[in-house]
Amino acid sequence: MSKIKIAICGYGNLGKGVEKEIHKSPDLELVGIFTRRNPQTLKTLSSVPILSIKDFENWKDKIDVVIMCGGSATDLPEQVPNVAKLFNTVDSFDTHAKIPEYFDTVNNSAIQAQKTAVISGGWDPGMFSVMRTYADAILPGGNTYTFWGKGVSQGHSDAIRRIPGVKNAIQYTIPIEEAMDQVRKGKNPNLTTAQKHLRECFVVLEDGANSQSIEEQIQTMPNYFADYHTEVHFISEEELLQNHSKMSHGGFVIHSAETGNQNNQIIEYSLKLDSNPEFTASVLIALARATDRMNHSGQYGAKTILDIPPAFLSPRSPEELRKEFL
Amino acid sequence: MSKIKIAICGYGNLGKGVEKEIHKSPDLELVGIFTRRNPQTLKTLSSVPILSIKDFENWKDKIDVVIMCGGSATDLPEQVPNVAKLFNTVDSFDTHAKIPEYFDTVNNSAIQAQKTAVISGGWDPGMFSVMRTYADAILPGGNTYTFWGKGVSQGHSDAIRRIPGVKNAIQYTIPIEEAMDQVRKGKNPNLTTAQKHLRECFVVLEDGANSQSIEEQIQTMPNYFADYHTEVHFISEEELLQNHSKMSHGGFVIHSAETGNQNNQIIEYSLKLDSNPEFTASVLIALARATDRMNHSGQYGAKTILDIPPAFLSPRSPEELRKEFL
Repeated sequence: MSKIKIAICGYGNLGKGVEKEIHKSPDLELVGIFTRRNPQTLKTLSSVPILSIKDFENWKDKIDVVIMCGGSATDLPEQVPNVAKLFNTVDSFDTHAKIPEYFDTVNNSAIQAQKTAVISGGWDPGMFSVMRTYADAILPGGNTYTFWGKGVSQGHSDAIRRIPGVKNAIQYTIPIEEAMDQVRKGKNPNLTTAQKHLRECFVVLEDGANSQSIEEQIQTMPNYFADYHTEVHFISEEELLQNHSKMSHGGFVIHSAETGNQNNQIIEYSLKLDSNPEFTASVLIALARATDRMNHSGQYGAKTILDIPPAFLSPRSPEELRKEFL
Repeated sequence: MSKIKIAICGYGNLGKGVEKEIHKSPDLELVGIFTRRNPQTLKTLSSVPILSIKDFENWKDKIDVVIMCGGSATDLPEQVPNVAKLFNTVDSFDTHAKIPEYFDTVNNSAIQAQKTAVISGGWDPGMFSVMRTYADAILPGGNTYTFWGKGVSQGHSDAIRRIPGVKNAIQYTIPIEEAMDQVRKGKNPNLTTAQKHLRECFVVLEDGANSQSIEEQIQTMPNYFADYHTEVHFISEEELLQNHSKMSHGGFVIHSAETGNQNNQIIEYSLKLDSNPEFTASVLIALARATDRMNHSGQYGAKTILDIPPAFLSPRSPEELRKEFL
């Protein structure tokens, strides 16, 4: 059987994750890495061709699926509508509020070219979306709670780094155990994001900076920290690099509902990830397989993981899945 | 919009669960309950027609999906291949070892009639199968562990009841916390079913029965208890009825794998169910909606939950799912 030919577009943490993990899928074959940078300057782990994104046209018919590994802020909205005119694509677009608009734009490109573009893969959006959808469909009228963490929030870390006197900083979002316990007991509390999470900050100061003033500036920062219980710890740069450079993350989707005569039914899904980008990459790889199958079965246009049968993500045959996994 | 017309076949705990929960899905409509018994003798909660399974022929074109609520031992293998010649069906066939054979038989009936028959719905097989498939597809080369309980095992309870001197009994399967902890820590232990679960038995004795001998008979019973850590408690009939009549159950699917350079990635899905039959019924109701959609999109024959996009189970529009659930 011929392998599904995969290309990576964008060589940051996510692209590197795809490159590292794709060998675990023997039915897929990495055929190239596309970059906006000068291809000559890129050092990769594998020996596949490194190409400029300007070369995409020349690779038509030589690639089955492009895994788009750029960021959601500017890369993906700019690249995917163009790349989806030439290739099937998978991406991890995660700006929740802009998904409907992004979907429409990508859908227009892909439908016209009879390509399949799976958007917003990964874990949230992605596997968490799948869990929210199943839970709500199976137990309608219940409440679904999403908790994130423990994990680094890049946006919040950046916000701290912008404060004058801060040399470096990292911010962890941590789910509040007490809130999770209430949910797991079926108490169906009303919880804001701030009531579900606390924020822990590790900050390295510039020489001579005033720690008390900086702590106050963090804890009162509107939108980012003011509504939250926020803990601030000042540490040395060495400690930051040594103990806080892992890209771990995770979270919980908990759905609680009643059936019959006051019977509590609780569904819980959780991820505990040492490497957020490697896990996201792993989801995108499985989705690339599914994208190729969707395209072969004539399902063109933009799709999400909610539109894809679970079996399409698996390399195993329907017979094996029924025998061993059902 | 016209509602999807649903019938129930079989009026035990599962059929009653479907009857109780279907009103939460306003897009579905219960139109009849079929029984092997004399319909005149059946007392139901709802006021829909109660019909003999001999009348199925007369209801052709008046039902979209029949939810088959009989048992896996004899009812479903006998009924579903026949009913699937007339209607789309959903069932909860759960004899894992016989699924491939059952699939083929049902598939033959349904394909010829251009009907869709979703087999083995529920939670295991069912939602747990979905979780095993996703996890293995996303993190290939990892280990998937399924733990059941705490919940009543009907087969094991029956085995105890057959011992002379036992008046009544109930057996709980309980996952061993220590084994779950090892798995959650990514230690990838090799565990037999007996190493994952202990068995707790609550037994009511006949007058004059010898408790010591009965405890020994239980603990040494081959296949059922001999390989397990088995605890036996003798209680009164009143206590059994009062404290052990809930049909609670649940379980865990935990997948553990490494990515990159020794990064542990843990996926966990769990169910904590006060009512096993009402939850299973809820899954079958969502699958009935999906079955109708599969049939309308020309997907005939036997299918499993692994073949169905998550969005097909939901009453919500694709737009709403992308906006609110993705």
